[in-house]
Amino acid sequence: MAAHPFSNHPIAASGKGLGSFGAGDTLGDVAGLGWNILAEDVSLPVAVLRGERIAHNLAWMRDFIGRYGVKLAPHGKTTMSPALFQRQLDHGAWGITLATASQTRAAYLHGVRRVLLANQLVGRGNMAIIAALQADADFDFYCCVDSAANADALGAYFAERGQTLKVLLELGVTGGRTGARDAVAEDEVLAAIARQPALKLAGIELYEGVLKEEADIRAFLQRAAGRLRRLCDDGAITTDTAILSGAGSAWYDIVAAEWTGLTLSRPVDIVLRPGCYLTHDVGIYKASQARIDASNPVAREMNASLLPALQLWAYVQSLPEPGRAIIALGKRDAAFDAGLPLPALQHRPGEAAPRAVPAHWQLSGMMDQHAYLDGLQPGDDIAVGDLIAFEISHPCLTFDKWRQLAIVDEGYTVTELVETFF
Amino acid sequence: MAAHPFSNHPIAASGKGLGSFGAGDTLGDVAGLGWNILAEDVSLPVAVLRGERIAHNLAWMRDFIGRYGVKLAPHGKTTMSPALFQRQLDHGAWGITLATASQTRAAYLHGVRRVLLANQLVGRGNMAIIAALQADADFDFYCCVDSAANADALGAYFAERGQTLKVLLELGVTGGRTGARDAVAEDEVLAAIARQPALKLAGIELYEGVLKEEADIRAFLQRAAGRLRRLCDDGAITTDTAILSGAGSAWYDIVAAEWTGLTLSRPVDIVLRPGCYLTHDVGIYKASQARIDASNPVAREMNASLLPALQLWAYVQSLPEPGRAIIALGKRDAAFDAGLPLPALQHRPGEAAPRAVPAHWQLSGMMDQHAYLDGLQPGDDIAVGDLIAFEISHPCLTFDKWRQLAIVDEGYTVTELVETFF
Repeated sequence: MAAHPFSNHPIAASGKGLGSFGAGDTLGDVAGLGWNILAEDVSLPVAVLRGERIAHNLAWMRDFIGRYGVKLAPHGKTTMSPALFQRQLDHGAWGITLATASQTRAAYLHGVRRVLLANQLVGRGNMAIIAALQADADFDFYCCVDSAANADALGAYFAERGQTLKVLLELGVTGGRTGARDAVAEDEVLAAIARQPALKLAGIELYEGVLKEEADIRAFLQRAAGRLRRLCDDGAITTDTAILSGAGSAWYDIVAAEWTGLTLSRPVDIVLRPGCYLTHDVGIYKASQARIDASNPVAREMNASLLPALQLWAYVQSLPEPGRAIIALGKRDAAFDAGLPLPALQHRPGEAAPRAVPAHWQLSGMMDQHAYLDGLQPGDDIAVGDLIAFEISHPCLTFDKWRQLAIVDEGYTVTELVETFF
Repeated sequence: MAAHPFSNHPIAASGKGLGSFGAGDTLGDVAGLGWNILAEDVSLPVAVLRGERIAHNLAWMRDFIGRYGVKLAPHGKTTMSPALFQRQLDHGAWGITLATASQTRAAYLHGVRRVLLANQLVGRGNMAIIAALQADADFDFYCCVDSAANADALGAYFAERGQTLKVLLELGVTGGRTGARDAVAEDEVLAAIARQPALKLAGIELYEGVLKEEADIRAFLQRAAGRLRRLCDDGAITTDTAILSGAGSAWYDIVAAEWTGLTLSRPVDIVLRPGCYLTHDVGIYKASQARIDASNPVAREMNASLLPALQLWAYVQSLPEPGRAIIALGKRDAAFDAGLPLPALQHRPGEAAPRAVPAHWQLSGMMDQHAYLDGLQPGDDIAVGDLIAFEISHPCLTFDKWRQLAIVDEGYTVTELVETFF
């Protein structure tokens, strides 16, 4: 992938979490502006990515994937940040996974040339986007199919435009999300794909994250591998290399362990799709990674785990009554669907460095633009104007609150702004 | 306010919910492109604003406010859409309310010249934004203060820059959000304001939406009016016209009824701040408006109430098992914190018009990019590729998922795109 000139993009004057800059300044000028979070150079709240931790996590996942000999197509819907996609590709990612046609176009326009759409491609407006991108012969695209109706619609649409479309049969489980539930449903979809000359069957896709038990997940993965083996043997795969793809951010180790070393009658790429490893978190993904660190033999050999890299800094806005602070941070700034943000650091302007917050401080609720920090005790040292750093649970629903995030060094000086395109 | 040339803005090529357009096309070209939602000209999901209902709601609120003789500063954080702000100002709004310094800058950059910041202005980065905007003598700005510490910090910051800052004393209630809790706290803040020559006390602000009982709300409103009366009598108000401001989207009728006709020893502007009336909803604000329609004498005289004007259209993406459809609509597209979106209409491509969905269909859950439509019964007519329209609860957390929304006519043809700046 050719480097995209992100540095030429203008700094968005209407953005949040920015310091002062000149009218013509671009993202390439940001490092030279010397904005420091602790020196209050930017407006708060601000979302920061800790640069050294992002680098650590990128290297960790490259190493993990490399040890298993599988491929990585990180789910880009997490960040929707092409500058971060480029870092992932620079660290050996095979491609980028996305959820929608619009996301695919946004990634393409910023340099991504291989996309696995981990969804059905439904509807004329969405198909039109993909057909337009496929006019570029360098664009390598795969999408999922789980119904004969969708296969017929795709086949007709792309045939009419003289294009082919590479598709993956999506498998699912009863009570789950999308995907063919059993062999009868799979056969029906496969028959529809086979009767559409515009469709090329490239392999199998699943999302195991709808299951909760490892044994169920392993059985699901084995079902997919077995089906792909039969498809290869039957000559039903019509691309050079078959694809077998699974793995969200919670169970990627089991997917890697179950599928690695698979030998089929034709070449196969095993493609894993975790998206949250890049920033990690201190909530739902901290919990799932603890299991991986404890039980996965490859992770146990690696000398450090993923590190939480995404923080939100916000002001103490009001101390209206004993025990309570109001923080200028809201549902407009942070995920709140998988645990509220956790206060981590406190910084008083003018002091040398931040300190850890007392363990008894915690958010009890959030509104659109405010959070309630409760549990303050008499004698706690807190003032209006203090900066509080929060760690988060669920990066996906935090990223989509920000049109740009600040990458900071260890001293919280901004070294880069990365844009998002939700 | 001079009209801002929104029509010159380019259509964002990386956006979602768009149809096809040329590389140089601007928002001003959108009407000519003839995109129709039902004809699948745009990628789904898409957020649409029903133009005639927006117009109805704008006129309704102008009428309501006019009958009470109070002023309107709609909370702009709901939409963060300057093109919608302009419609509100064109319908007689006194100014725009905002929640943060960054929001204020985004509004200013798109033509808004009077802002009530319904929050404390805390921190050097945030104060710097306001000081820069106040360099324009045409920019009229007010913010809230609820602590002596904040008054001192503001006084020092703006004095150093040779500026004055108009402030409103914020009142609060025990157990609530921000705001001075009692007369002792109020006096402390007022003393701090009085000792800062750079601060001009302009009046009083409160947010009654943290209370649940009408009697408590009326008492809170009376407390504010009483305090403002004493401040006027004491000569503590140092602006020409005093301001008394309250009202979110749930209790604006009570605020209007309680404060209208207030006579003080100097001129007073009563400024109401509802933000959700513009699009209304079928959830939390439908419920609060039902109370207003039933009990407020002015609303009862008016011959129609607010209408829900914001819809999300999305595809049936998968029909994986009996009883369940998977919709290509997720937490990335719609608010989910005050009730899930409600399915309203179904449209099959090629049919003449949408039909109402069966009453037994409902969303049972949402993920980042998917929703579970459950309750389907044998014989229900639903197909992969059908378009489903959803009505929403809580416009604020729906708007912030979209960088542009499509205004549509009664036939769902797109007449305009309005941008948001979150």
